[in-house]
Amino acid sequence: MSAGHGTRADVVPPEVLAARAYLMRVAEPPSRAVGAFVARHGPVETADRIRRGLDLSADLDAATEARRDVDRSGADLDAMAARGGRLLVPEDPDWPAWSLKDLHEAAAEDLPDLLPPLALWVRGPLPLVDAGRGWVAVVGSRAATDYGLWVAGDWAAGLADAGMTTVSGAALGIDGAAHRGSLVAGGPTVAVLACGLDRPYPAAHSRLLDRIAGTGAVLTEYPPGTVPGRHRFLVRNRLVAALAIGTLVVEAGARSGARRTALVAHLLGRSVMVVPGPVTSAQSVGCHALARDPETSVVGRVDDVVETVGDLGRFAPDEGRPSRSTDGLSPRVLRVHEALSRRTARSARRLAYYSGVDLHSVELGLDQLERAELAERSGGRWRLRPG
Amino acid sequence: MSAGHGTRADVVPPEVLAARAYLMRVAEPPSRAVGAFVARHGPVETADRIRRGLDLSADLDAATEARRDVDRSGADLDAMAARGGRLLVPEDPDWPAWSLKDLHEAAAEDLPDLLPPLALWVRGPLPLVDAGRGWVAVVGSRAATDYGLWVAGDWAAGLADAGMTTVSGAALGIDGAAHRGSLVAGGPTVAVLACGLDRPYPAAHSRLLDRIAGTGAVLTEYPPGTVPGRHRFLVRNRLVAALAIGTLVVEAGARSGARRTALVAHLLGRSVMVVPGPVTSAQSVGCHALARDPETSVVGRVDDVVETVGDLGRFAPDEGRPSRSTDGLSPRVLRVHEALSRRTARSARRLAYYSGVDLHSVELGLDQLERAELAERSGGRWRLRPG
Repeated sequence: MSAGHGTRADVVPPEVLAARAYLMRVAEPPSRAVGAFVARHGPVETADRIRRGLDLSADLDAATEARRDVDRSGADLDAMAARGGRLLVPEDPDWPAWSLKDLHEAAAEDLPDLLPPLALWVRGPLPLVDAGRGWVAVVGSRAATDYGLWVAGDWAAGLADAGMTTVSGAALGIDGAAHRGSLVAGGPTVAVLACGLDRPYPAAHSRLLDRIAGTGAVLTEYPPGTVPGRHRFLVRNRLVAALAIGTLVVEAGARSGARRTALVAHLLGRSVMVVPGPVTSAQSVGCHALARDPETSVVGRVDDVVETVGDLGRFAPDEGRPSRSTDGLSPRVLRVHEALSRRTARSARRLAYYSGVDLHSVELGLDQLERAELAERSGGRWRLRPG
Repeated sequence: MSAGHGTRADVVPPEVLAARAYLMRVAEPPSRAVGAFVARHGPVETADRIRRGLDLSADLDAATEARRDVDRSGADLDAMAARGGRLLVPEDPDWPAWSLKDLHEAAAEDLPDLLPPLALWVRGPLPLVDAGRGWVAVVGSRAATDYGLWVAGDWAAGLADAGMTTVSGAALGIDGAAHRGSLVAGGPTVAVLACGLDRPYPAAHSRLLDRIAGTGAVLTEYPPGTVPGRHRFLVRNRLVAALAIGTLVVEAGARSGARRTALVAHLLGRSVMVVPGPVTSAQSVGCHALARDPETSVVGRVDDVVETVGDLGRFAPDEGRPSRSTDGLSPRVLRVHEALSRRTARSARRLAYYSGVDLHSVELGLDQLERAELAERSGGRWRLRPG
């Protein structure tokens, strides 16, 4: 968790950094139009064409018309460097490509598009390329109870002790308690903001954010000076869910934003975990509603969290893996096989996430693995068949 | 819920009552040897042969050797009649055959054999033939917290309001709170004892048991004079689980007997539901451990309980059932089809319970129903396919 993966501007062409810094301001992120154009033409050509208003698609022209003359990329990069920050771009070896690959144009009612960010403004030494494996999102209400605050802090510390990194949104309530719990245990923690890095929000967490940036990471897709807004919290939440291998909801009211984050995690194939609480507590109603979904794991202790995210959560090799022959299996089916756990039965959707194989192929692969007696079904989920 | 299903001694031959009363004392229930012999030869011949020690199987001879000369059947029947009780036997139309049919020789580690009772000593007017449908077991720790006691009482009242009957063990703690909650709401409740009806246990619940017997039922398989013992609580718990369509665990410590009752309910194909509580409470540890099983439902409110036990819980017709053609389906597959709900996805195991069809045939039937577009799979469970 030491530094050494600091700014990689040395391996990223300056014009790429400048282009992406410009593009992050030219339309409110995440912009489907900008993202699609960058995917086809690259950031430098896209920025150039937007600046000049030349050969743009109609939707890109509309999306960027108002701000295309504003280019603060140089000032933004300088301002962030002065604050110890950097712009992390997909061309950088530290880019969390594995975690963000599941962000695509999927969308659900009431949710912003689940699109990848164009880049991330980052403070802090934590390597982000490790995101996903071993990262657990800890989210919940701002209006948390003493019970929720205690659990968030205590469990975040327990997760740090287990070698895991917590991800949260630095809000008051559960978020702040989780970040503090990790820090108390000496573990790195990651805060994803809905505003510019120079606008710490909430103000009461300004020093906390500095501490997080000391060993972990504070990151955002919003350029310097951006103030938070309701829409931006929802947009930010998709990054919290995407960067972690599972999302733990500690407390959530009936209409909590944490439930939306859990929904995003589910859509992305991540584990959703809830902390149970008193049925008499309005702040646990959202957790218990989520628990009605068979895909949600109810976790009563830190060990349950570690068990749920499984060996992928800790890079731990599954020592119980049998040496039964997997000869003759295709590389794709082998990846499904490797994603199976002996201890924890996993849904096909989750195996698709772990293996990086599409869901339909996972289902076909599981049939094949079952026939080969390498996998067994357990209540609609799958586990490695004991030798 | 009125009387009218009182003693049916008028339709049961007196020698059958006398024989079963004798057999309930001649070996500690449930006796595999006695049960098997009764199944083959009927209660009257079995009692006669045991009394005379003639033509017995070796295991039956051994099981009944010590007590075969003790025949208190007449005195037991008279004593219970004097207390307003009766002996309910399988030959009686009020026998809860549907609920008890799943008790067979299945057994699990640390559990007594899951055998049906030879008969039941009963006080109270509630028809027992209705057991199962609409009956929910509410169980939990004796050393309950204020939280657990409140939930048990409040939810039992809510279940009574929803037209459901609670079943419990009349113990201190959760059991007593559940019985009282039902009574407060004017609903019938059923207490299953681990001792004779003339030995109310615990003594502090003596008046509570009288009130339960006023509108519901107090029942036991132990003859008059039997005192409770650890083994008998375990044996009793199988009846609590069997008589209800689902078991709700309100609070349970790590090694609570309520967890065993839940295991029995699971083995019998009943729904297992747990009330979540603070993860900081030792009395919720058992509930949260049970919640790790994908087959367990976490219930945050009374409505969740009603939803989990489904329309079978309340005799409510499933008005959403489509009129799609089921022509050509075998009677067995039709029964599986009728056990499907549109609203609640059910496991094959649960459908086996609801339909009375064996698990393997249920699985074959579900394949057929899926091909006919009458059923759909949802996370390893099955529901009626919307029209």
